[in-house]
Amino acid sequence: MQKKQMQPFDVIVIGAGPAGYSSAIRCAQLGLKTACIDNWHNEKGRSSLGGTYLNAGCVASLALLESAKIYHSLNHNLKQHGIQADAVTADITLMMQRKNNIIETLSRQIADLFAQHKITCIQAKAKLLNERRVEITPADRSPSSIIGAKHIILATGSSPVDLPGAQIDNAFIIDSGMALNLDAVPKRLAIIGAGVIGLELAGIWSRLGAETILLEAQETFLSMTDQQIAREAYRIYTEQGLELRLGARVISAKKGNKKVTVEYQDSEGTHALRVDKLIVASGRKPNTENLAAAEADLLLDENGYVYVDENCRSNLPGVYAIGDLTLLGPMIAHKGIEEGLFVAEQIAGLHNPINYDLLPSVVFTEPEIAWVGQTEQALRAMGEPIKIGIYPLKATARAQALGQTEGMVKIIAHAETDALLGIHIIGTQASEMIAEAVLAMEFSASSEDLARTIHAHPTLAKALHGAALALKTRFST
Amino acid sequence: MQKKQMQPFDVIVIGAGPAGYSSAIRCAQLGLKTACIDNWHNEKGRSSLGGTYLNAGCVASLALLESAKIYHSLNHNLKQHGIQADAVTADITLMMQRKNNIIETLSRQIADLFAQHKITCIQAKAKLLNERRVEITPADRSPSSIIGAKHIILATGSSPVDLPGAQIDNAFIIDSGMALNLDAVPKRLAIIGAGVIGLELAGIWSRLGAETILLEAQETFLSMTDQQIAREAYRIYTEQGLELRLGARVISAKKGNKKVTVEYQDSEGTHALRVDKLIVASGRKPNTENLAAAEADLLLDENGYVYVDENCRSNLPGVYAIGDLTLLGPMIAHKGIEEGLFVAEQIAGLHNPINYDLLPSVVFTEPEIAWVGQTEQALRAMGEPIKIGIYPLKATARAQALGQTEGMVKIIAHAETDALLGIHIIGTQASEMIAEAVLAMEFSASSEDLARTIHAHPTLAKALHGAALALKTRFST
Repeated sequence: MQKKQMQPFDVIVIGAGPAGYSSAIRCAQLGLKTACIDNWHNEKGRSSLGGTYLNAGCVASLALLESAKIYHSLNHNLKQHGIQADAVTADITLMMQRKNNIIETLSRQIADLFAQHKITCIQAKAKLLNERRVEITPADRSPSSIIGAKHIILATGSSPVDLPGAQIDNAFIIDSGMALNLDAVPKRLAIIGAGVIGLELAGIWSRLGAETILLEAQETFLSMTDQQIAREAYRIYTEQGLELRLGARVISAKKGNKKVTVEYQDSEGTHALRVDKLIVASGRKPNTENLAAAEADLLLDENGYVYVDENCRSNLPGVYAIGDLTLLGPMIAHKGIEEGLFVAEQIAGLHNPINYDLLPSVVFTEPEIAWVGQTEQALRAMGEPIKIGIYPLKATARAQALGQTEGMVKIIAHAETDALLGIHIIGTQASEMIAEAVLAMEFSASSEDLARTIHAHPTLAKALHGAALALKTRFST
Repeated sequence: MQKKQMQPFDVIVIGAGPAGYSSAIRCAQLGLKTACIDNWHNEKGRSSLGGTYLNAGCVASLALLESAKIYHSLNHNLKQHGIQADAVTADITLMMQRKNNIIETLSRQIADLFAQHKITCIQAKAKLLNERRVEITPADRSPSSIIGAKHIILATGSSPVDLPGAQIDNAFIIDSGMALNLDAVPKRLAIIGAGVIGLELAGIWSRLGAETILLEAQETFLSMTDQQIAREAYRIYTEQGLELRLGARVISAKKGNKKVTVEYQDSEGTHALRVDKLIVASGRKPNTENLAAAEADLLLDENGYVYVDENCRSNLPGVYAIGDLTLLGPMIAHKGIEEGLFVAEQIAGLHNPINYDLLPSVVFTEPEIAWVGQTEQALRAMGEPIKIGIYPLKATARAQALGQTEGMVKIIAHAETDALLGIHIIGTQASEMIAEAVLAMEFSASSEDLARTIHAHPTLAKALHGAALALKTRFST
């Protein structure tokens, strides 16, 4: 690459979450001189690349869930294995330390990739100015400076939404990030929002011993999920001990006497709930508040999302937005990563668009929920002629051997063409099983294609095979 | 279907292992009047459909491995999670009971499917006579009788091979089936054969506390496996505490004073090994010894396999052999199942041949090994121009969160066409990850196809994606 005059960088990426770091590395691989500005600090005050996804989201949550599952199974599932253990105790500080170590390892991997690819990594706050310039304010309070680039990629991610009436104090009323950093198990815990994040947190803390109550404003549980799967999930979570209160709109949450009193309303009236901690997990908003100076004239929509076209281009030439900042797809890590790669390649003159229709969705509870394609309710609403194949996990030898028999695979195919339209899984390792489903749909496979593909025995993947065979009114064991 | 004169059944299936039960059920689904004769008894003397696979093989082994992993992690992996447990003990009788319950549940599922499909299930020994007749000798010693059918499917499976010089007494010197029914953990255990079965058994008993030594006659470890993966496996197993002695040819094994003395020879000379139990896991042979009367004239090869053509047809018209009885493919459950379905459909006039090239292979140790397609050594020997992409599991956030970071995914593609030629995985849940790989190869995918398919984060499947991206000299995190 030739050096451009006056512009030290070809690309500046703002934010080093999954969207940002992927984009920065891909830019560098494609020969672009790249800088990435990030401002995440860990507890020790050190830079921690990886964004919410790594530091205070999915990965942190999965790491804790793993510990929580072990602790819970020690207390509940050993007997059937003929194993006995006494005096089971959990040290939450050490558990958090394991989670933090995992985050550090993965964050260092990103830093190493940045170094390998000669990406300039700047630890600072960044603000977009006009003419593709960025003002950077270092975390160490050294003076601000301004750098420019031919292309700027905005990837600052999202943050938890505040709930009016429930002021976050990060002691008693906490947000979803803080909920992954508690130093003790609350005796009684309420979570506002029974969406993906609320459910993931509930699965961790309830397994560690918290009596857990979820308050969800919507009447419909997991409304974006196939409703047959959502009903199964509701049943399983409830049996696991979660208390799910739907149609429960929170009016206020007040701290007093080391407790939180949550007032909420449902169809039966107004209720008060006294808990030891309250987690607010009622959604996320794009981080655009201080992203651009007024002079930049960056166009946002009424909810603060960066306006972009289908190529992730903002209203400003050479300025792109990816990941949670846009409304192009759901707020999930792999959507951001794909957009990061897509924009990097676009800048390098390649055009590899994203198939948003085949983004898998995952709820990392135990059992997990994962799906790709369309739900039964959406297809019925469209009047599509469909057929459905279902296979319960408990019919697989693998699920029996694991002792994880809850759940099912549901395949929806077009009634006439047999094309796969949606694959919905609830069960242990659903997030892994969905990979085959996505590939099948990426190849426009029919259910017959899946049915005719040999699946190893004994595996959970046999349930996917079984559901495809069920569609052919064949059997599987 | 019209009733045939003189022949009460359209099809008799001999054996209710995976090949046999699949075939019987598919026959019945296709409208054929079907009988299935099986002679497996459990400890309680009751019929137990499912063959070795279910009763004394893969499923039983996986069920015990799950318990063994839990026991082992209680003793070794809790600290990092901040969890403490005292006085950890294992009751092997209860552990076996759990395994037996799982077998019973799954065996009952097969019996239920038989009943649903109106299959006549006969608990008896069966011997093939001439003219598609079968002599049945019930287990309850009631008199023998003879039944006939238009088609006979032989599916009697395989048994452990005896080793000259190591007489099985099922007390001190035991076979691989008995090794899944011990009532206590041997202090010191030797296993003859470090193939799939020997390794699976070693993983169970060593985790339960047995000092475990494997004696393998071959100099090459897991010779049928991609050798890069095999080297990784050797390193991991050894670090886990297994003692692997290669090129060790057993001369004799003798019981005396409640110990077994194994004499074996390697390149350095002759050695003696004193252990508490010896498991002989040196291969399996087809169960054809009493399968057919001389008058039937069934053609076997010199090793006792039923001679069949590519359509599983024996030398006798209307008589088929499937599963472990033939040399058409490896002795694995899903090969038998596919052949069972294939023959059933063939009888019903359909022709859906099996793609033996895309049979996945799995070693159910922890970590697991799974592969599909060809190994690097085979492709190099053929002089194929290849390129290789590797991705370590530890680079995925999921593996880090699970604390299961050993292993890798290796993708081999054609250097010019980019077509996938072989996918080799070692790592936790490799058996599940291989499903996507098989589907990709079934669709004649290129590594580019895999690289362009969105994979959910954070999952282990990302390692497969990462290996595909590595082939494109791209990166993945």
